[in-house]
Amino acid sequence: MVEPSIVTPSLRDQLDVVIPTSRDLDFLEAWRPFLKNYHLIIVQEGDPSKTIKVPDGFDYELYNQKDVERILGPKASCISFKDSASRSFGFMVSKKKYIFTIDDDCFVAKDPSGKDIDALEEHFKNLLTPSTPIFFNTLYDPYRKGADFVRGYPFSWREGAPTAVSNGLSLTRPDGDVAATQPNQRYVDAVMTIPKGSLFSMSGTNLAFNKDLVGPAMYFGVVRDGQPAGLYDELWVGLCVKVICDHLGLGVKTGLPYVWHSKASNSLADVEKGSKSVSWEKEVIPFFQEVVFPKEASTVQQCYLELSKQVKEKLSATDPYFAKLSDSMVKWIGAWGELNAS
Amino acid sequence: MVEPSIVTPSLRDQLDVVIPTSRDLDFLEAWRPFLKNYHLIIVQEGDPSKTIKVPDGFDYELYNQKDVERILGPKASCISFKDSASRSFGFMVSKKKYIFTIDDDCFVAKDPSGKDIDALEEHFKNLLTPSTPIFFNTLYDPYRKGADFVRGYPFSWREGAPTAVSNGLSLTRPDGDVAATQPNQRYVDAVMTIPKGSLFSMSGTNLAFNKDLVGPAMYFGVVRDGQPAGLYDELWVGLCVKVICDHLGLGVKTGLPYVWHSKASNSLADVEKGSKSVSWEKEVIPFFQEVVFPKEASTVQQCYLELSKQVKEKLSATDPYFAKLSDSMVKWIGAWGELNAS
Repeated sequence: MVEPSIVTPSLRDQLDVVIPTSRDLDFLEAWRPFLKNYHLIIVQEGDPSKTIKVPDGFDYELYNQKDVERILGPKASCISFKDSASRSFGFMVSKKKYIFTIDDDCFVAKDPSGKDIDALEEHFKNLLTPSTPIFFNTLYDPYRKGADFVRGYPFSWREGAPTAVSNGLSLTRPDGDVAATQPNQRYVDAVMTIPKGSLFSMSGTNLAFNKDLVGPAMYFGVVRDGQPAGLYDELWVGLCVKVICDHLGLGVKTGLPYVWHSKASNSLADVEKGSKSVSWEKEVIPFFQEVVFPKEASTVQQCYLELSKQVKEKLSATDPYFAKLSDSMVKWIGAWGELNAS
Repeated sequence: MVEPSIVTPSLRDQLDVVIPTSRDLDFLEAWRPFLKNYHLIIVQEGDPSKTIKVPDGFDYELYNQKDVERILGPKASCISFKDSASRSFGFMVSKKKYIFTIDDDCFVAKDPSGKDIDALEEHFKNLLTPSTPIFFNTLYDPYRKGADFVRGYPFSWREGAPTAVSNGLSLTRPDGDVAATQPNQRYVDAVMTIPKGSLFSMSGTNLAFNKDLVGPAMYFGVVRDGQPAGLYDELWVGLCVKVICDHLGLGVKTGLPYVWHSKASNSLADVEKGSKSVSWEKEVIPFFQEVVFPKEASTVQQCYLELSKQVKEKLSATDPYFAKLSDSMVKWIGAWGELNAS
């Protein structure tokens, strides 16, 4: 029995698809059945004089570095054009309530029955139902069809919290890079809330969020010289988002939907193993474990500015990069405010 | 391809199966292929003059209320004989490193391929590999075969923590009680660590643990008059176990293996909804969210005695039952010490 989609045309109109890229978007052909009716925001990495080809029939706007500099002026320096962290500009310029962002090396995955997965359908299911950050439900997301709270789950907590983030997962493409040391090909049919107080490694590969609830925290940072692109930025943004969601009582879900990712994630992680990031970890993770926001910080912007202050105070000694990052965080919030006047 | 079992005869000899019951153990017939080589500890609930029949061929010892009173003397009052909380005595009297406890209305479940699930094989996989309580791995238990850490997972935390508890799940038996309002029939192929700082509702239905690491915290309490049997005790013990594991740096896993449970869990929960427990929740859950142990509390026994003190101080005003429970907790630790001299 095919279940009717929960995505009505009016819901669809409330979401923008943000794609960071440096190349022609041939990968969209595979996504056509699922993305053809959505509006796309493409943010071009690298050389702005290069022309990016977008397959016919898609409704899109495209920004390159020159466009961003024109729109943001001196604040444009907070946007990285070296890698997929450029996606942050797409979040800022969107006028929609929901954002879905995806990498240009991702493809439509199949569920175990062989059916193509409609990633947006699943992300909407995650975002439109509450989360359970306060008390762990061992039966996974209790708000999904056919699911429930486990016996003994406190009744007082069953209303849940608003869901801000849906962190989708990736499978290694079966015909993809065979050099991946340990490709992930396990499809787990689950969605769950990452509990309050627990940090995680978020991925921008297949990510959806409620811009109204958490948008200003979705800053992928500026990429450091010599840093392997697209690794540390993702960990960083996930940590920022999570501590702010925890403070504001918002939920972060992870699990379904899956996409196929052609990159060899673990090989990349192995490269990374010897780099700066490993020594940073020992300072950065405890920093986020201990971060506390003042009670008065009641908006994402306020929390983010407070976080930028603490980053400068407590992490600059680890590496001067963090002082620069802190300045970029402040610039980002300023630019966000200009484009998103409330 | 059939994977070889990780359960060697010498590993099997390190585990006791604890079964609380008030009736003949016909259900063991279904478990024979999986439990025939294990030692069973049966703890009889209710009238000690009744004879419990155990199918031929099982290696077991059986204790009823009279036996427990003879062994524990005045401390026997900490063991409840009204319901399955009696299992705690089995934990105490066992001389093994690992315990598996199961309810007498549980049956062998099948995985999606139709194969009977060897619950102990899966529990051993959970207990013999580390947990990840400090940082959430979105790809579930990274130590299971075919699994890994997600890209970006901090290298500093990949060693994990010793696993103390494996909380297996239950499926509603397809031919079981059809009155269950929302039977759980979703098999999710996952195991995960419940993060540090997050509370959950543990179940004694299908539970394994490392007695050396966490045994003295596995006290299912004394059942209050008029309290629906087997509900609040489970929630209570899970909260105690979790805060102590968090303090001591131990891991708690949940997920596989599944068993079939013939009881209608959700119907029971609905009965419970109007009862005392709901008003308790509002005091009890925050109590556990805020409990802090002194640094000097470095053993499970020390933590448990400290917890009993705080229960008396902070929860007695909610209901005098908690003062009695606190006394029983102290008695339990005393009895544990007598039977488990180190």
